[in-house]
Amino acid sequence: MTAGATGLEMSALGDEIVGRIEELSAISETSGSLTRVFLTREHRAAAELLLGWMRSAGMRAHLDAIGNICGRYEGEQPGMPCLMLGSHYDSVRDAGKWDGPLGLITAISCVADLNRRRARLPFAIEVVGFADEEGVRFASTLLGSRAVAGTFDESVLGKLDAAGISMHEAIARFGLDPDHVGRAARTRAELLAYVELHIEQGPVLEGLNLSVGVVSAIAGATRLAANLTGMAGHAGTVPMPLRRDALAGAAECIVEIEEFCRTDEGGLVGTVGYVHAKPGATNVIPGYVSFTIDIRAPTDAHRKRAVTDIVRRIENIAKRRKLALQIDVTHENRTVPCAPWLKHQVADAIAAEGFRVFELPSGAGHDGMAMIDIADIGMIFVRCRGGVSHHPDEHVDKADVEAGARVLLRLIENFRQQDMAH
Amino acid sequence: MTAGATGLEMSALGDEIVGRIEELSAISETSGSLTRVFLTREHRAAAELLLGWMRSAGMRAHLDAIGNICGRYEGEQPGMPCLMLGSHYDSVRDAGKWDGPLGLITAISCVADLNRRRARLPFAIEVVGFADEEGVRFASTLLGSRAVAGTFDESVLGKLDAAGISMHEAIARFGLDPDHVGRAARTRAELLAYVELHIEQGPVLEGLNLSVGVVSAIAGATRLAANLTGMAGHAGTVPMPLRRDALAGAAECIVEIEEFCRTDEGGLVGTVGYVHAKPGATNVIPGYVSFTIDIRAPTDAHRKRAVTDIVRRIENIAKRRKLALQIDVTHENRTVPCAPWLKHQVADAIAAEGFRVFELPSGAGHDGMAMIDIADIGMIFVRCRGGVSHHPDEHVDKADVEAGARVLLRLIENFRQQDMAH
Repeated sequence: MTAGATGLEMSALGDEIVGRIEELSAISETSGSLTRVFLTREHRAAAELLLGWMRSAGMRAHLDAIGNICGRYEGEQPGMPCLMLGSHYDSVRDAGKWDGPLGLITAISCVADLNRRRARLPFAIEVVGFADEEGVRFASTLLGSRAVAGTFDESVLGKLDAAGISMHEAIARFGLDPDHVGRAARTRAELLAYVELHIEQGPVLEGLNLSVGVVSAIAGATRLAANLTGMAGHAGTVPMPLRRDALAGAAECIVEIEEFCRTDEGGLVGTVGYVHAKPGATNVIPGYVSFTIDIRAPTDAHRKRAVTDIVRRIENIAKRRKLALQIDVTHENRTVPCAPWLKHQVADAIAAEGFRVFELPSGAGHDGMAMIDIADIGMIFVRCRGGVSHHPDEHVDKADVEAGARVLLRLIENFRQQDMAH
Repeated sequence: MTAGATGLEMSALGDEIVGRIEELSAISETSGSLTRVFLTREHRAAAELLLGWMRSAGMRAHLDAIGNICGRYEGEQPGMPCLMLGSHYDSVRDAGKWDGPLGLITAISCVADLNRRRARLPFAIEVVGFADEEGVRFASTLLGSRAVAGTFDESVLGKLDAAGISMHEAIARFGLDPDHVGRAARTRAELLAYVELHIEQGPVLEGLNLSVGVVSAIAGATRLAANLTGMAGHAGTVPMPLRRDALAGAAECIVEIEEFCRTDEGGLVGTVGYVHAKPGATNVIPGYVSFTIDIRAPTDAHRKRAVTDIVRRIENIAKRRKLALQIDVTHENRTVPCAPWLKHQVADAIAAEGFRVFELPSGAGHDGMAMIDIADIGMIFVRCRGGVSHHPDEHVDKADVEAGARVLLRLIENFRQQDMAH
């Protein structure tokens, strides 16, 4: 692809995106890191800035009923179904500046480039900035995209934030009507597809020296909570053979989970992120340990098989050590596949821009998990340094920002509807 | 042994001891468990009760300069050197009623039995109830016995309790003179030996179906603090081979420590009682883990060799996993051996009472660790149910209370000074 006569050179597009990432990142509760949470003053300020960029890109733009920002760039005729692009502009606490905003700002800049060239396509383009993907404030994720997909669960309006303010009240204070969140919903007929560009948040592309990748699926996840109960005792007085040490048992489980996943060849990952031993004193054998397990795999069948195997192994360890075990599934997300026809178009755009095509699953969750309910989804991953995300050190090289923008713009310009794709 | 004509039958002595254990246990901050802490209202009330029992046993009794209770039963002539018996009457929080009081009350009851028979021995008997062995209030243990041994470190007077009260102020409020704690000190010439009866606080005697045991030594302990630093990451996005999971590394260390100690044949015990993983979220690979290690063995040489081996193994695990390791010794207690001549007299008393003689180390610390500085020490262990201690479920059967009293009384009556023992 080359930009049209009136379009910007790619390096200029990269400069614009990186500059806007920086400008947007200044809107934060915290300095030195990014903290931008749903329905806060920072949310409002970021929305205004983004709406301005959308309008200057030739889009009609507005805040929807949940606080998403929505921009529309008409196609060859007004009112055509749209290719929807987007990402979120909220953050975790002490985040980096790229997770979410890169996809959103790149999409706006791509539209701006089309607009400078007065290019109209045989479909509309909409860009959505989701108000809450991370779920920091109300411990409920994908609020923005669920509202758009029409799957927003009104019962979450009663959830309280850390200050005791309900979501219902927070929406009203923000100036929106909490009784009409449903108005943000879109229909399947309005959307041709939902495509999101996002940083990888992992080290795979970096390890392969690739700027961009085709996402195959958003991996499903099963989370478990395990408790082991043994017998607390004095660290000095209980001989080793008489112990029922809950922490030693948990440690064996953790090593086993790691080994099971490490030797899997299908992309399985398993993580014990939290552990707590009681009573937790240097000189007391732990009598009780709780820990969490997070299991993800590119397919649901693989993940479910792995969960069954891992639970059985933990049961065996507990039994052999005479520890009482309680293990429960606390959370389960199905795998959300990217549509093959969209994966092909992403791959074609990557190849056309001269990059090697590589497909990888997303281990992290994204707004596509909600958007799948009203549209086929596709995703483009952009390399981030060291795979670091949810941290102020999160970084994307400008060359990779440009690569992502080139691929997204090529995808847009070459986009064909599903029934026209073959 | 049979009690003399004017002495009590052993079952009556057992009744008296158990009754007094119950009566003393009512003096507690907490109900349903025992909480009796240094220089509190409960300390004062317990001291008064115990001083009364000492006096009714024919002893002169007083509170010393640190709040220990001290009773003296003269020998054949006034002013003779003493066999010192004792234990502590403070407790951990939510403790049982036997840890400390059993040894103290049994000693008082043994003296009472001698006194009823008007028996005078060729040495005096002193009974000391140490005011603080557990170190709960000021996080400094063995305060009472260190004062008696003349090794009380005056710098601890500046330590603050949880309410911000210094030990200096607490001693003054209790009615003692914090500038003269040194007056509690005794000299080596005054003591023939220090002998303590205590519950085992472990399951060894129970496993062997023995009421009592000869303590060989108070095992030394080395405590280490280990930190592993890897790389935090998203639980979904970092493939297993690219992880540097600090918790998986710590888990391997915990399993290795357990296995190393389990396969040792010299009584080595190793415990990881505390572990903390950061950031500690279900969906984040832990980048940092800290944990403690407590290593004990019956001899210093064995313990030191084990510490060296365990540290080397942890270093190897950290190196292989590319984790940064910091490991430091935070605490070290040398092994305090019981004097062979006292072990022989304890063993002879056990055999004379018709019990099988079995020698075992004490994995827990005791006041003998301080008393060793002014006297040879000996210890008698009494079986406790399930090895449970530092817990309201701590329990000793009355038959074992009686066995302990018989052995202690026999030891007292047959006691020979070291240079007269052979």
